[in-house]
Amino acid sequence: MNPRRRSKPIQIGRVTVGGDAPIVVQSMTKTDTRDIKSTIAQIKELEDCGGELVRVAVPDMKAAEAISPIKQGVSTPIIADIHFDYRLALMALVAGADGLRLNPGNISEPEQVTKIVQAAKERKVPIRIGVNAGSLPKSKKPKLSIAEQMVEAALEQVRLLESLDFDLIKVSLKAFDVPTTIEAYQSIARKIAYPLHIGVTEAGPPRTGIIRSTVGIGTLLYQGIGDTIRVSLTAHPREEVIAGYEILKSLNLRQHGPVLVSCPSCGRAEVDIIKLAEAVEKELLKITKPIKVAVMGCVVNGPGEAKDADIGIACGKGRAVLFKKGKKLRTIEEKDFITALMAEVERF
Amino acid sequence: MNPRRRSKPIQIGRVTVGGDAPIVVQSMTKTDTRDIKSTIAQIKELEDCGGELVRVAVPDMKAAEAISPIKQGVSTPIIADIHFDYRLALMALVAGADGLRLNPGNISEPEQVTKIVQAAKERKVPIRIGVNAGSLPKSKKPKLSIAEQMVEAALEQVRLLESLDFDLIKVSLKAFDVPTTIEAYQSIARKIAYPLHIGVTEAGPPRTGIIRSTVGIGTLLYQGIGDTIRVSLTAHPREEVIAGYEILKSLNLRQHGPVLVSCPSCGRAEVDIIKLAEAVEKELLKITKPIKVAVMGCVVNGPGEAKDADIGIACGKGRAVLFKKGKKLRTIEEKDFITALMAEVERF
Repeated sequence: MNPRRRSKPIQIGRVTVGGDAPIVVQSMTKTDTRDIKSTIAQIKELEDCGGELVRVAVPDMKAAEAISPIKQGVSTPIIADIHFDYRLALMALVAGADGLRLNPGNISEPEQVTKIVQAAKERKVPIRIGVNAGSLPKSKKPKLSIAEQMVEAALEQVRLLESLDFDLIKVSLKAFDVPTTIEAYQSIARKIAYPLHIGVTEAGPPRTGIIRSTVGIGTLLYQGIGDTIRVSLTAHPREEVIAGYEILKSLNLRQHGPVLVSCPSCGRAEVDIIKLAEAVEKELLKITKPIKVAVMGCVVNGPGEAKDADIGIACGKGRAVLFKKGKKLRTIEEKDFITALMAEVERF
Repeated sequence: MNPRRRSKPIQIGRVTVGGDAPIVVQSMTKTDTRDIKSTIAQIKELEDCGGELVRVAVPDMKAAEAISPIKQGVSTPIIADIHFDYRLALMALVAGADGLRLNPGNISEPEQVTKIVQAAKERKVPIRIGVNAGSLPKSKKPKLSIAEQMVEAALEQVRLLESLDFDLIKVSLKAFDVPTTIEAYQSIARKIAYPLHIGVTEAGPPRTGIIRSTVGIGTLLYQGIGDTIRVSLTAHPREEVIAGYEILKSLNLRQHGPVLVSCPSCGRAEVDIIKLAEAVEKELLKITKPIKVAVMGCVVNGPGEAKDADIGIACGKGRAVLFKKGKKLRTIEEKDFITALMAEVERF
């Protein structure tokens, strides 16, 4: 696994992105931003599951103005998502946005960008240059690959911001095509030192979207690329935050609550491991400490295979071995499987 | 993306693994193998969703014998999963197993392995050397990392098989820890030319297990490593096959039915994109041809962002634009969204 790429940290409200800061998990609200009450409620749901930054759509002036009362109701820094109209960015800044996202595919006029940058600079508010493969500005080098056209679009706006003496920059280069996404990030990671927001765009509903996003984000993180992640899913944004942490946990990049180790079950199992693991998974939602819990379907293989687990259970017919760090604690009866396991989890 | 590592193809029944063959999606039954009727039924469920190889647990002689009648009822090649007792492998071969999986952590006695290899050679049945981090044989070099101990265990058995003039070999090196898994496969990929079966072990129930498996398998495939994959989930094996194809599709390594592009929805959307995408996803389960379908929440961004899609819909308030390869076909009313979209999908 590559060491993390060194990036220049930026500050989005109280959250640091880049440098040595933990890789930040972010999401985006799916409420109408002008509906202040619903938007605050959704951001609070994201805070409850660990969302660290949240972006809101700003389709009009009323949405830009809503950022001010929304900020009163939440503690998460708010990033305003701006397309087409630079004046929405100016209003979002006045309303207290902690970050801006601009799409070079639809705001590229240097005069307009300059106005945004000046207002952001006064307030020390970072700007994400958020390139999407599907809305690229017309390339000057149309023979380039899509990935390289994305990099070109980002670099052009990076240079404009730098020429205005502005360096509170973050960059994203998202495509639906995963190899294109990875290629684009690999390329820009070698060219600039700004932090990178990584993700795959329009990845779809959870069933397929999680896999598509995870291949892209996971491969990049393994290469040391990425300072903040957003898993885009056609689902409640809570699912995006949960998936984000699971990706980071699987590469040991963040801790976030328990980790459940469970065998897939097979013709050897003498209990219904699928049902048991589901029940334990549900119980673990109540636990916030980082603890590794194992549910294994085989007394012979179980404790050894899961010896890294803090607490585990290896099930035989009607009975199971409860173990701690690979060492047997005691034998328990089937009716006590969940209560005994969870009691040890609590105690750990 | 790295070109695929060149591996020496082997034949498991009618399925080729390695070489230029498509990356094979496999799974394992979770029924009691001795329950022939249930095991056949589960294998047929896997055949229906594209499972190409299936492994069955062989905990005892009765399970080994059951392979013969199971094979009568299915068309998928059957791999016998053997632990501890070499005689189970011999019986599985007699019963017609198309492949064997041995765990060097619990069958390593050269005399026993030799007996298995001789019987497999007569029948041209390949053997997977299936190393698991949790059940490693005692290492001769205990200072090695877990990943390197896994490689050492596999290589020792590879050498034994080669010394018996047997080369119908496939290797797997699975750990729960994803970086360990990746490191182990990267290392062995440089050392041998046999095909690799890749996967992450005991990854857990779908919610977290899919992510953990996808990070490991996706990262390796991106590096060109892997000839067959198994996503281990504590769930019905159908979920493993579906997830396997989604990983391969996201890296453009296999086609398998439709691909759904859908935006995550945001404060800009004027229809319930989450509900609509879920409904379209359900409709697409009936379609088997590879087609890219887009569901976008924004008339302004939608057709452009999804211009790669074969057929798509970009929704505004109460109406939507139906488009084909980025070109508008016509405007449709909300009540017709799904029927009109699916009619175009069928027609494509």
